[in-house]
Amino acid sequence: MTSEFQKKLQRALDAKTKPIGSLGRLEQLAAQIATLQGTFQPSMSTCQLIIFGADHGIADQGVSAYPSEVTRQMVENLLAGGAAANVIADSLDVPVKIIDAGIKGDPINHPDLINRRIAPGTADFSTGPAMNSDQYHLATKHGANLFPSPSQGETKRGSTDAVCFGEIGIANTASASMIAHKIHDIPLQDLVGPGTGLNPEGVQHKMDVLTKSSQRTAPRLDAAAALTEYGGFEIVMMAAAIRHAATAKRLVIIDGFIATAAAIAAIKSEPDITDALLFAHRSGERGHDAMLQALNVKPLLDLDMRLGEGTGALLAWPLVKAAAAILNNMATFQSAQVSTKL
Amino acid sequence: MTSEFQKKLQRALDAKTKPIGSLGRLEQLAAQIATLQGTFQPSMSTCQLIIFGADHGIADQGVSAYPSEVTRQMVENLLAGGAAANVIADSLDVPVKIIDAGIKGDPINHPDLINRRIAPGTADFSTGPAMNSDQYHLATKHGANLFPSPSQGETKRGSTDAVCFGEIGIANTASASMIAHKIHDIPLQDLVGPGTGLNPEGVQHKMDVLTKSSQRTAPRLDAAAALTEYGGFEIVMMAAAIRHAATAKRLVIIDGFIATAAAIAAIKSEPDITDALLFAHRSGERGHDAMLQALNVKPLLDLDMRLGEGTGALLAWPLVKAAAAILNNMATFQSAQVSTKL
Repeated sequence: MTSEFQKKLQRALDAKTKPIGSLGRLEQLAAQIATLQGTFQPSMSTCQLIIFGADHGIADQGVSAYPSEVTRQMVENLLAGGAAANVIADSLDVPVKIIDAGIKGDPINHPDLINRRIAPGTADFSTGPAMNSDQYHLATKHGANLFPSPSQGETKRGSTDAVCFGEIGIANTASASMIAHKIHDIPLQDLVGPGTGLNPEGVQHKMDVLTKSSQRTAPRLDAAAALTEYGGFEIVMMAAAIRHAATAKRLVIIDGFIATAAAIAAIKSEPDITDALLFAHRSGERGHDAMLQALNVKPLLDLDMRLGEGTGALLAWPLVKAAAAILNNMATFQSAQVSTKL
Repeated sequence: MTSEFQKKLQRALDAKTKPIGSLGRLEQLAAQIATLQGTFQPSMSTCQLIIFGADHGIADQGVSAYPSEVTRQMVENLLAGGAAANVIADSLDVPVKIIDAGIKGDPINHPDLINRRIAPGTADFSTGPAMNSDQYHLATKHGANLFPSPSQGETKRGSTDAVCFGEIGIANTASASMIAHKIHDIPLQDLVGPGTGLNPEGVQHKMDVLTKSSQRTAPRLDAAAALTEYGGFEIVMMAAAIRHAATAKRLVIIDGFIATAAAIAAIKSEPDITDALLFAHRSGERGHDAMLQALNVKPLLDLDMRLGEGTGALLAWPLVKAAAAILNNMATFQSAQVSTKL
């Protein structure tokens, strides 16, 4: 956007009946949305949550407090509407889609599950790459296809103004830690935490496994290499979906530790997308803060949540709607005949 | 509530399909709501915003960046639906009520305005009490009557599960500062800030006016004396409404600087109500943090907002609904047949 647009946008916000800047982060958010859509009357009426589920070979190394089978069980729980993401999404009227990106075992047979299975889980990345190049490209393609590039003349946003991405995948904090470590050179000790609830010995073991896994590859990797080496399928798919949703001018609401790792990969390959991203919250998973600092972003919420599934992203949605409403619906000092500052 | 209730409540939360404690503040909020209503299936479907408007004689001393007439103009803007509180409330489907607690000039003639006028503004508190005892008692009665004590057998919550209180009143950060100063002995220099936008000289002048006004009365005052001496009508009415809404087992969502001063007065006269209060956000008005610390509470949001009108309180409402949904609608590990921790 031109600086002329930004100047006019600031004047439009300052003309609203409120002390200048008094809506704080909401005003910044309103400006972000307006800039993304290139209009002072942005549309923010629809949002959806897309949850990617996949399993991780690294779980065999005992890096999670829960067994791998919980991925499948939680996907079934999501399909039945009983998971945290479902009930929070319902309370906010946000529809939820569930994608099987590569869950262990046989395909889950459910009419609402979108099958984009790459394989029944990644390979154990402590001994070799989590996936091969074909798998990486297929997962990327599936993620990209969720938000096709608009053809000439078509609306750029399509059917949703904003999108939240969530995930479920036992052991995926291990993958996410490796991605942030390899792309942004964040020390593993700043990233590795208890995930779903490891005790201190468990965290130390996870640290040992990841340190060893890190030595398998070059100290720094590009996004494609980091994702291929350390997985998982749900993170690769999410990274591609983030990139393409942002390019299609959707507001992309980023959840916590795993989603931020996917965002790190997406931004690494396409830095321009940053303006479309909203970092919803600071996760209770300790390494999240290191990721946010590496990206130089301040999240909207800080509620000590560390569940994943997109639960933190969802809670930002009503604030996004409120921000758009400021620009769309508030009166100006002039229209409401309110006196300005003395 | 008994500790047996609390133990069962914690077990109910821990049985839900999520790592223990992984929903952070939302779980604490769910526990607060359940405890308030005395049930593990709390109702959180309705919320309303009540905005009290009034004028302040102290405005004559030049303690605000805006002229007094803006109170009336903003109330008219609220009645027309053009203020920040309206558009944010609309985006969250929260109905708004506007109460004239004592706006300067003739009564405003509007079908939706609830007339509870005590007088056309308080007296200038730099030279004498803001109101007399009769005015204080009438304002308290009006506030209390918004949430009548339930008769035997009646539902305790009545027509709303939660309530946000907002205010509009040019110069009311001056009153709020004095209330917190006199009740909690917080130094004025930790409380006094720019309000709607004073420059540093303006803040110094406000500080001088309030220092002088403070010397008129004893160093510490009880709630009734602090409110009578320093006003305003909207704060007195709000303090009574907070007390009675809390006693009637509504969740009372407290907004920013002014609403927290009203809460300080309400808690001072009835400490038991604290469990019904949710402090929605940390205001951008610098003295708010000193108030929150004096109350030893951590607000839910921190968005650098400092507008009043209940705008910050409103944004907590979708989080409250989400918190209740966790208890009401999430599956348990047992019901969803999900494996527990290794």
